[in-house]
Amino acid sequence: MKVSDLSRLTGTPVGTIKYYLREGLLPPGRALGATLTMYGDEHIQRLRLIRALTARGGLSIAATRDVLAAIDQPLDPLATLGVVHYALPTPVDAAETDAVGEQAPQVDQLLGAMGWDISEESPHRRALAASLMDLSRLGMEYSTEDLLPYAELAAAAARLDLDRLEDIEDRLRLAEHAAIVVLLLEPVLAILRRLAQEDESRHRTAWARTTDGAGPRSTTRPVDHPRESH
Amino acid sequence: MKVSDLSRLTGTPVGTIKYYLREGLLPPGRALGATLTMYGDEHIQRLRLIRALTARGGLSIAATRDVLAAIDQPLDPLATLGVVHYALPTPVDAAETDAVGEQAPQVDQLLGAMGWDISEESPHRRALAASLMDLSRLGMEYSTEDLLPYAELAAAAARLDLDRLEDIEDRLRLAEHAAIVVLLLEPVLAILRRLAQEDESRHRTAWARTTDGAGPRSTTRPVDHPRESH
Repeated sequence: MKVSDLSRLTGTPVGTIKYYLREGLLPPGRALGATLTMYGDEHIQRLRLIRALTARGGLSIAATRDVLAAIDQPLDPLATLGVVHYALPTPVDAAETDAVGEQAPQVDQLLGAMGWDISEESPHRRALAASLMDLSRLGMEYSTEDLLPYAELAAAAARLDLDRLEDIEDRLRLAEHAAIVVLLLEPVLAILRRLAQEDESRHRTAWARTTDGAGPRSTTRPVDHPRESH
Repeated sequence: MKVSDLSRLTGTPVGTIKYYLREGLLPPGRALGATLTMYGDEHIQRLRLIRALTARGGLSIAATRDVLAAIDQPLDPLATLGVVHYALPTPVDAAETDAVGEQAPQVDQLLGAMGWDISEESPHRRALAASLMDLSRLGMEYSTEDLLPYAELAAAAARLDLDRLEDIEDRLRLAEHAAIVVLLLEPVLAILRRLAQEDESRHRTAWARTTDGAGPRSTTRPVDHPRESH
């Protein structure tokens, strides 16, 4: 298809497409002469991914280029997830070096307690330390004991994530999906948690009212096994 | 303390403090004369919260004002969580009305399957629809069956969140902590998931190598009960 068709099918202005081509975000089309270049379905898919990473994921053009470069590397498919991880911005920018250092032992303790095998170079170590520091400064200390049940839930989510990725046979598609699963599933999970908080707070409030607020402090219900997927 | 002490203790420039006072983000201090106004510990805590909401949570000044207004309302403490929810921006901006509508039945189906009691006005219904639409356009359909195990994990996380909030007796502090738990725990959970993905992908890759990649497609381990906290 011509660039005008690509523009129409994806709702992306031609000028934007040419900008992505110049910036190396979009692979060149097939030149059929001095003025005619043809594009394929892979350009449609790539444009949608660029839009998702920038508009939804909030990535800069530079970060998007890094992620796309990681996606295009012919790596071991599961190892690609690591490359994607390091190319993506972390959910928290860990700028304050000294203050983050204070929380580093707690991060090590949590990783140790979970038995997680994490690279020393992982940007997520510092990002987690920065987040815990924020919470601590606001008077909300989260101890390793407090964080462990959340880490268990994260581990269960990661297993679901990787099960999904293992269903994909095409290696380039897999790398692309790894970026999508890491970045675009994050808001889904955040929204699900907020919905669950609304439901849970509604139940607890109703319960507190019927017992005139005199019930026990915690109304924790047993934590169910996540249902089997697929 | 004087405004200069408040500035020094919180690392916030005096000009910024005066801006927050003018914008109504920070309650006025106690005037001890025409030129001397005194501030208290509550101003330190509030400044830290404003900084966390704006710098970490990425909220605008207007959104921060809405959240702080919600926090300061003398409401039922657990219902406050709902007010905070609606004042916070959603993780996804659901701008495309028509396209979001397409996914609305799937959102209803998921909420029904979970038995979640969610207001029709919840901004998270539309935000979830928008996220699912993004994924679908990128060729990653998540069916209700695919989402259910994630929703179960979100429900378990929400129970942990509300257990934590129920430990807090002071009602204003509780509302403040609700905003922190909703907004600032989100990056913590996102980072924990990425760390868990790294660990899980390392295990699966190592496993795949030792068996020469000829193992079964899925290496799902049993999902553990989240450990008991506290």
